[in-house]
Amino acid sequence: MKPSPTRLFISATPSGNCYKVQLQLALQRLRCPVAALDILADPPQTRSPEFLALNPSGRVPLMKLADGTNLAESNAILFYLAAGTTYLPRSPLTAAQVMQWMFFEQYSHEPNIAVLRYLYRWGDLEGQPEGTEDRLRTRGTAALKIMEQHLSENAFFVTDRLTIADVSLFAYTHVAPEAGFSLSGYPAIRDWIERVKGTARFIPMAT
Amino acid sequence: MKPSPTRLFISATPSGNCYKVQLQLALQRLRCPVAALDILADPPQTRSPEFLALNPSGRVPLMKLADGTNLAESNAILFYLAAGTTYLPRSPLTAAQVMQWMFFEQYSHEPNIAVLRYLYRWGDLEGQPEGTEDRLRTRGTAALKIMEQHLSENAFFVTDRLTIADVSLFAYTHVAPEAGFSLSGYPAIRDWIERVKGTARFIPMAT
Repeated sequence: MKPSPTRLFISATPSGNCYKVQLQLALQRLRCPVAALDILADPPQTRSPEFLALNPSGRVPLMKLADGTNLAESNAILFYLAAGTTYLPRSPLTAAQVMQWMFFEQYSHEPNIAVLRYLYRWGDLEGQPEGTEDRLRTRGTAALKIMEQHLSENAFFVTDRLTIADVSLFAYTHVAPEAGFSLSGYPAIRDWIERVKGTARFIPMAT
Repeated sequence: MKPSPTRLFISATPSGNCYKVQLQLALQRLRCPVAALDILADPPQTRSPEFLALNPSGRVPLMKLADGTNLAESNAILFYLAAGTTYLPRSPLTAAQVMQWMFFEQYSHEPNIAVLRYLYRWGDLEGQPEGTEDRLRTRGTAALKIMEQHLSENAFFVTDRLTIADVSLFAYTHVAPEAGFSLSGYPAIRDWIERVKGTARFIPMAT
């Protein structure tokens, strides 16, 4: 038996990393009380001594479990929730391919697309070092092209149905236009976004 | 049965991400032919059409398996190799905690410490945008402090013995001084480095 989630800490501003977990909970028909923290406060509520005692990284999402464990890192939380379900295939190779796309998401996608979206919506884009937007734009576009290539031959990222790799990559891809990434040149990504949205029990991201 | 690794593509310059996989192979007494690519060539050998056909991300390590699969992302390769061994505990919660530290490694540690090490040893540090070194130094130091705090109360990251979370974090932590991060203020990290080095079948990183 896996200890149940007892509290999910999220950001009060719409965060793809937090939404991933909320979407996965919905897909699995799991309920968990949510606590929304103000990350735009000065200092952010994620940097309070109380929160840092739960997660020294000072980041959300963070999921508290019934045994007292505090689990951090959005994709590790997805891994935990999905273990033992079809959202994380049991075969080591298939599961490793799910992990491959999730590490791609955190290394090549999120640091560019999510960070640029944050700067567009809430941040100080003008105050960034010269070339920041170009760098994030170039790298984010490279990530989208890799996704487009893969999805032009596959309905979902790893198997013929949705896994946590799709949940992970969906979060910031479907809001990439908020960071100025047009998806008009990515028909396979657009079709995949519709397939994810058409999944039973899908919930949209807060805006 | 998991398909066996048949070829490991690594970088000819010493890379922690590639070393992780070589160390894990050694720990598990697995053998795999290695192909070293010149990532400093212009263009890098990882950006050749032949290599991009294997891994569209154009990155090493990449592991080819006996069934023809090409597996990318260092931590996903560790996950694959370790599945079914004590290096990746079977319990979903313990495995999720291993994943938590591996996502921490790729999000909060590698992009700062490994990137700064690369710029120190092979890159154009002077040609980077103003503030790059300070930013990487600040964020890399934050990652080391989180590790120090955790290791001051734990012999290894997740269980009482080495897991792939330790292998992953060891790779760039033990060479952090090459990027100007002194480990003198991190006694728990230094002790952990010695514990990892003392593990049976440990192999050092190429220099």
